[in-house]
Amino acid sequence: MSNQRRNFLKGIFATGALLAGNKLWGSSREVISSFESVADPEKKEFTTTDVLKGMPIRATFLDEISWDIPHQNWGYKEWDEDFKAMKAMGIQTVVMIRSGLGKWIAAPFRSLLSREDLYYPPVDLVEMFLTLADTYGMAFYFGLYDSGKYWQEGLFQREIDLNRYLIDEVWEKYGHHRSFRGWYLSQEISRRTKNMSRIYAYMGKHAKQISGNLPTMVSPYIHGVKTDQVMAGDKPLSVREHEEEWNEILGNVEGVVDIMAFQDGQVDYHELYDYLVINKKLADTYQIRCWTNIESFDRDMPIRFLPIKWEKLLFKLEAARKAGMEDAITFEFSHFMSPNSTYLQAGHLYNRYREHFQIR
Amino acid sequence: MSNQRRNFLKGIFATGALLAGNKLWGSSREVISSFESVADPEKKEFTTTDVLKGMPIRATFLDEISWDIPHQNWGYKEWDEDFKAMKAMGIQTVVMIRSGLGKWIAAPFRSLLSREDLYYPPVDLVEMFLTLADTYGMAFYFGLYDSGKYWQEGLFQREIDLNRYLIDEVWEKYGHHRSFRGWYLSQEISRRTKNMSRIYAYMGKHAKQISGNLPTMVSPYIHGVKTDQVMAGDKPLSVREHEEEWNEILGNVEGVVDIMAFQDGQVDYHELYDYLVINKKLADTYQIRCWTNIESFDRDMPIRFLPIKWEKLLFKLEAARKAGMEDAITFEFSHFMSPNSTYLQAGHLYNRYREHFQIR
Amino acid sequence: MSNQRRNFLKGIFATGALLAGNKLWGSSREVISSFESVADPEKKEFTTTDVLKGMPIRATFLDEISWDIPHQNWGYKEWDEDFKAMKAMGIQTVVMIRSGLGKWIAAPFRSLLSREDLYYPPVDLVEMFLTLADTYGMAFYFGLYDSGKYWQEGLFQREIDLNRYLIDEVWEKYGHHRSFRGWYLSQEISRRTKNMSRIYAYMGKHAKQISGNLPTMVSPYIHGVKTDQVMAGDKPLSVREHEEEWNEILGNVEGVVDIMAFQDGQVDYHELYDYLVINKKLADTYQIRCWTNIESFDRDMPIRFLPIKWEKLLFKLEAARKAGMEDAITFEFSHFMSPNSTYLQAGHLYNRYREHFQIR
Repeated sequence: MSNQRRNFLKGIFATGALLAGNKLWGSSREVISSFESVADPEKKEFTTTDVLKGMPIRATFLDEISWDIPHQNWGYKEWDEDFKAMKAMGIQTVVMIRSGLGKWIAAPFRSLLSREDLYYPPVDLVEMFLTLADTYGMAFYFGLYDSGKYWQEGLFQREIDLNRYLIDEVWEKYGHHRSFRGWYLSQEISRRTKNMSRIYAYMGKHAKQISGNLPTMVSPYIHGVKTDQVMAGDKPLSVREHEEEWNEILGNVEGVVDIMAFQDGQVDYHELYDYLVINKKLADTYQIRCWTNIESFDRDMPIRFLPIKWEKLLFKLEAARKAGMEDAITFEFSHFMSPNSTYLQAGHLYNRYREHFQIR
Repeated sequence: MSNQRRNFLKGIFATGALLAGNKLWGSSREVISSFESVADPEKKEFTTTDVLKGMPIRATFLDEISWDIPHQNWGYKEWDEDFKAMKAMGIQTVVMIRSGLGKWIAAPFRSLLSREDLYYPPVDLVEMFLTLADTYGMAFYFGLYDSGKYWQEGLFQREIDLNRYLIDEVWEKYGHHRSFRGWYLSQEISRRTKNMSRIYAYMGKHAKQISGNLPTMVSPYIHGVKTDQVMAGDKPLSVREHEEEWNEILGNVEGVVDIMAFQDGQVDYHELYDYLVINKKLADTYQIRCWTNIESFDRDMPIRFLPIKWEKLLFKLEAARKAGMEDAITFEFSHFMSPNSTYLQAGHLYNRYREHFQIR
Repeated sequence: MSNQRRNFLKGIFATGALLAGNKLWGSSREVISSFESVADPEKKEFTTTDVLKGMPIRATFLDEISWDIPHQNWGYKEWDEDFKAMKAMGIQTVVMIRSGLGKWIAAPFRSLLSREDLYYPPVDLVEMFLTLADTYGMAFYFGLYDSGKYWQEGLFQREIDLNRYLIDEVWEKYGHHRSFRGWYLSQEISRRTKNMSRIYAYMGKHAKQISGNLPTMVSPYIHGVKTDQVMAGDKPLSVREHEEEWNEILGNVEGVVDIMAFQDGQVDYHELYDYLVINKKLADTYQIRCWTNIESFDRDMPIRFLPIKWEKLLFKLEAARKAGMEDAITFEFSHFMSPNSTYLQAGHLYNRYREHFQIR
């Protein structure tokens, strides 16, 4: 049925059509004629078609230290189980979202403890995650420190310095792990911020130099309808404005960012494909690898946040596939897609995902 | 103890008394004299009396496509388990709350896909639910499509047309299922809305005609203290205003609505009985069957929403029994009362319910 | 390593230093030199040091009737299991947070039912909790009734009267239980309120007299940055203002309050120690036993509320230990720290706690 799909997707994925916004999934007559529901009650089979193919998720963030997701209180045993489940789903890369936020840090980093008033951490999460990544043959990316306070003009040099010392310490102490494969620039930025892009530039450059040019990743967000700012009355960025602003930002960080994985949850589902196409175009211009950061939590519900509906995840995975994303990382597996999650909806999402991609 | 209860309930359920609002459950001296606690520590029995008898729940909504309840990501196997659990609790009717909301639809309906830009659904939920209803000998009601945008004057004819085509397609494609027993008019309305009641009239009439007069159900809500509007500063409707407005609305839809099941969660617990009595009176006037839609989630908590406290559910079931409700449908079993729910409080609620009604 | 710890803690816990606010956990060079991470990947051991010792939790509230925590719908069997789990963790005292709130009450109290319009309760929770406390050899504290409406000047005598009659009834009916060991004055107060402290005085005095001087407990909260009032724009109380206001309040209730357990969640983590030191100083002045009410739920997340992160709980337990708290009660075990909780994060927290205190 691949020909039919090709025709169908040609129909609905033509950028023009989508930008015009008057053609969507299955809304054209071709689709309807090409795709009969294959539901078969006898076989207890109720999936409709293979219209939605999607691309696989091969990476996840590790959300420690967390910003707005409640903690699961896992120890080594539980994390070991979870890395096993990631592996079984096809995850090859884990990205520690940050090594610290404000006073909370993920390991007793002398470089930070000696310079800032921080809470002394009871666990060395970096050593633990690297050990697990070694065990399961995964790649580990180290997320930098986010002070949460040195962002404004005049102060951000402090953010850079703290991270430079941290990078030195971390590489010396943990660099020997064979799973240590990259750096994550954790400061999330959206609209053009001279400071932040400069921070990216400095930190990224230093991290690459000291580590023999290991790749660096960023995961910005689109200033879309589901950002807190826009929900609070701010105007969302149009696709064109998004392209202009990020063209400038990426110009500022040329050569120090290797992977760009935009968060995919701040725009509406029918808008996503257009933004992804632009992100890919921008990435190609600056020779950056273009991943998608596919959010596995649901932004549309009063409870903020529980696992996303499988249908929504699949829709986004298909949009990403069609837009030519090179890889997909999710935020994040352990709360929202894991059979070990304390949110039981996540285990069901894990099963739906494995069924769809026929992962036994 | 039935005589004692009769005396007691005569005491506290006299409408006058309740409307006057100065006598409530067990607050009269008779109650206290009639009902000694039967708690028996020796037998580990701590229920107090059988003051609260309650009426059984025999129907539930199926909340797909959901508006504000996060998805559980169930496939056929999980749904099959859940229909089994419904059956074991005494549920005989399942009502699919809607066949679509905005761009999300429950099955690949050509009638909608060819006229609106919608997301192509990965599963045919209608075929699945009907197959399960057939298997477990339940009645299935089909919920109509809610565009979420064609409600205002001048546009609502579009809402009617889309649903008319949908009804034709659905009856032709799914009408053969022996469990297909009725239609649910899914547009929730509260205060008098000419448009909406006209939509009800047109859609209900067409659905009944084409299906050999299968019954139609509506589930409006009371403009009470727990609606978002009133919590945002709007004035709640008094019992008298509620009666006047619904007298007019029901006049507009006479003959096309067979079952009216008001949501019971927007008023305070001590107000509920009075509203139920009015709803029954209105239903009798227009010869409509009067059910109660007993919400099994808790509206009183910061987390919106988790399963309701058993005591609150029982209180509402007793108020419904005393007000003469003909049947009870809950919103909804699978998240809030099921032993399979990802909210584990729901499984405990299921057990409390079964203990109370002595369902082994 | 006890000497090193002593040195270290002397360093960072000197009240002066903390009040100055420029030295925190592990931020001084001594710490860094004294404490090497003891993480040992070979042994799958990743805890960093024993800097954070903490004090054990030996009491919990029973949150029935609840104010803002959704109900778990447990019956006797589930509660029996949970008392077993409490016991296994070292809990010796259970405090029923209140016997009623507004129209909802925990048992069919004639003293209240005959004077107020209340909902007749289906279960005698007092009999059940006392029976379980007897079985597991725990101490039970009875929480008084909170009308939620008789707080303002001119009305609060009604709050006192209702509770006086309630105390008489309860002592007569339940006083025989050997686990009945004290009274909890449930009206939570924060800033100086003449009414409330007078209510404390009257109720506390009467409860002690009738029961042969059983101890009374209160659990006020600090008017800190995480109170709803301050989050809504009100100014938090400084440590000094807190001391002045509570010096006056405690003067009003001298002799009728035996245990004071301030809630520990309304101030930021780095502020907590300073407030605890003041609370201890105040308690000593008025010869009251000083406990801490360590909240086991997380106030920093959008979901209000789920179990707290173990690292945060441990941090607070260590601050309490250093400030010389005489005991620790948590709000509360059954939702937020129990292996039986419907929030599965709680079971993991229970395991982390048991590992840390080496409770097999």
